[in-house]
Amino acid sequence: MTTTFAPPPTERSRVRRAEDRGHYDHATIHAIVDAAYLCHVSFVDERGPLCLPTAVWRVDDHVLIHGSNGSKMMKSLAQGTPACLAITHLDGLVMARSAFSHSMNFRSVVIHGTFETVPDEDKTEVMHRLMDHLAPGRRHEARAPDRNELAATTVLRMPLFEAAAKIRAWGPKDKDEDMNWPVWAGVMPLRQAQLKPVAEPGGPAETPAYVQQWASA
Amino acid sequence: MTTTFAPPPTERSRVRRAEDRGHYDHATIHAIVDAAYLCHVSFVDERGPLCLPTAVWRVDDHVLIHGSNGSKMMKSLAQGTPACLAITHLDGLVMARSAFSHSMNFRSVVIHGTFETVPDEDKTEVMHRLMDHLAPGRRHEARAPDRNELAATTVLRMPLFEAAAKIRAWGPKDKDEDMNWPVWAGVMPLRQAQLKPVAEPGGPAETPAYVQQWASA
Repeated sequence: MTTTFAPPPTERSRVRRAEDRGHYDHATIHAIVDAAYLCHVSFVDERGPLCLPTAVWRVDDHVLIHGSNGSKMMKSLAQGTPACLAITHLDGLVMARSAFSHSMNFRSVVIHGTFETVPDEDKTEVMHRLMDHLAPGRRHEARAPDRNELAATTVLRMPLFEAAAKIRAWGPKDKDEDMNWPVWAGVMPLRQAQLKPVAEPGGPAETPAYVQQWASA
Repeated sequence: MTTTFAPPPTERSRVRRAEDRGHYDHATIHAIVDAAYLCHVSFVDERGPLCLPTAVWRVDDHVLIHGSNGSKMMKSLAQGTPACLAITHLDGLVMARSAFSHSMNFRSVVIHGTFETVPDEDKTEVMHRLMDHLAPGRRHEARAPDRNELAATTVLRMPLFEAAAKIRAWGPKDKDEDMNWPVWAGVMPLRQAQLKPVAEPGGPAETPAYVQQWASA
């Protein structure tokens, strides 16, 4: 499924505001997707436009989401209704000399398209890839999904085709006449931190590597 | 503008899946909104459904967003097009004994409605509230917006009326027959961490309290 080209932006995926922040190459887009556990998905049903958070992972040139067959979102998206998926990492508050020039540092990917259902024969493999994304090696340790559990789960994928990344990763950009304004200016960084794991009581004595390494990052 | 009642969920705002995770009271919804710097907004234009990240803050019973008058998103939303705004904080990966029961801990708010334009006479005050949200006290230090900058900015607000919070904040819930499966189970927590501020060169010697306290949290 891997393509070796980066498709040009379409009229829909092109970054319009602050075009210097736009990126369309696979390496940049994949890195932002792979750093995420969560996305927001937009689509329209009889309730109007919806914006719902859900787990996300990547397999080659697709982003994947999953849910119960009974989920209204899964049912709507499985029908190929137009959708938009966004992933955003907030990296900091940018404090400029002027209130107007304040900004945020971030890495985002916005993907337009439609979802298709991952066929049954591929479900086990893509669910393994989700587990690999969360905790490498754990798929060999956790109790594997049985036939009923797999059958109760809808897995959907959207191609990373009409996709655009947007990145701001620098300090404040003030107007020349504001550069000497007597106020602290700079970036107050933010990062998704991993805290000490909390084990359930009564488990095995051995702690897997991905748990041991979690809070040391 | 503050109301003292929590409106009941509408057919649209009611949490359908995992109803025990749904909350509709103002205190819960406000706390989740106030912990956020960023939201995702969904709406539809000629490109189809869109899901776009943007800065968010709260003033009383409204969530607010802002942008350049020239932004397509601002122009569409200012016309009162139906929209949905979501805020999600990811609090951890929930490692169950069975692959199927894996989950995530999170706090989210999803708000349905339409935006209205904040009138010019209120713009200065609500932009102060944004600065207070980012850095308390800074609005007295940064160079204040001039008339042209304010005029170039669209500020929109949506009432926190059709709003629902959803929270998962506990360990894995495995089936009884999986409880003795020999695998580590528990929560691998995540948190938005504040890192050491990065000052622009040539600024004043004095570092404001909100900068000093940023990385100590």
